[in-house]
Amino acid sequence: MSGVFITFEGPDGSGKTTQIKLLEEYFKKKGYDILITREPGGTDISEQIRKIILDRKNTQMDRITEALLYSASRAQHVAQVIKPALLEGKVIICDRFVDSSIVYQGIGRGLGIDFIKKINDMATDGTEPDITFLMKISPEKGLSRKFSSDECNRLDMERLEFHNKVYEGYLKLEKLYPKRIIGIDAAKSIEKVHEIIIKKVIDKQF
Amino acid sequence: MSGVFITFEGPDGSGKTTQIKLLEEYFKKKGYDILITREPGGTDISEQIRKIILDRKNTQMDRITEALLYSASRAQHVAQVIKPALLEGKVIICDRFVDSSIVYQGIGRGLGIDFIKKINDMATDGTEPDITFLMKISPEKGLSRKFSSDECNRLDMERLEFHNKVYEGYLKLEKLYPKRIIGIDAAKSIEKVHEIIIKKVIDKQF
Repeated sequence: MSGVFITFEGPDGSGKTTQIKLLEEYFKKKGYDILITREPGGTDISEQIRKIILDRKNTQMDRITEALLYSASRAQHVAQVIKPALLEGKVIICDRFVDSSIVYQGIGRGLGIDFIKKINDMATDGTEPDITFLMKISPEKGLSRKFSSDECNRLDMERLEFHNKVYEGYLKLEKLYPKRIIGIDAAKSIEKVHEIIIKKVIDKQF
Repeated sequence: MSGVFITFEGPDGSGKTTQIKLLEEYFKKKGYDILITREPGGTDISEQIRKIILDRKNTQMDRITEALLYSASRAQHVAQVIKPALLEGKVIICDRFVDSSIVYQGIGRGLGIDFIKKINDMATDGTEPDITFLMKISPEKGLSRKFSSDECNRLDMERLEFHNKVYEGYLKLEKLYPKRIIGIDAAKSIEKVHEIIIKKVIDKQF
């Protein structure tokens, strides 16, 4: 496959959306064919699954159900969007991918990294990001940024303890995959963070 | 767990619904606390997932997505309905369970029995039926029964070849699990089939 697959990870409120938009503009100016997508979601079927996962009425959702729904959504996203775009040589920027499932379901909800890896190996069929930007910000700071906005869903309401475990999971992954995962101090200014990302992208020589 | 878990399997149009209703009446008359449920479905969340699976608009659904959605629906059903009911000592009759996933996704769609078993082991968390009634009818006959009714969904429209593979899968499972799976000639009259089922239920000494 000749395209480039970039993912963004990090707690809610870490500035992923803003940075994705800035990176998109960068690639567009350079004349790249670029595709912005997100998880859970990214296809019509995945968006239907996303709705079930995030619906605040679904308080009885079992953690195994949740993990399987995330992987189902991802399977569709990979098969219908990411793989075809990679084959067409596009630059794909995806907001969250397998790393999110590992830290949120595997570590945060205690389902185990192995369990989540297994179902995601099936879902992704071998498709891995070329580079992952991990936006590092403490959960307290991330959540306070997010709650000042109007957005709020079922997942936001989980306890802070959960988010702290998730964050530690991210730091663990950063150590495990130092070549792929680039940790960035998301408390820095928007411009500074963008500058760091661009530098890394140039280093990678896409 | 002190309850009894009975499942019904077989092609569409094999008379599962009718036989489940008759068996329900039998148990009710005997004074049992009985729960009738179905897959995919059986909980509010599972029904939301069921809608996505069966929606005729979702023609682009990847077979891995489909398999993961079935297992997600099942995980919720087991955690929220089946396990609690078994603990309460109820008789549970379920229309389709893991065997359906094995024959439809594993064999019919060619995902492999191992793959389907793996994700379902996670979804069911060790919960297995005590007895499974396999309603045996050729796919041609089953489909012609079904199409004479008004019901028709995306899955009905798959080719007959697919249904034949599925049916062969069922016969294979019947041989693999002779203690659990009771094959029944579903071409017999409704009364005769019911009689056979009751006899087997009595033999099992629930």
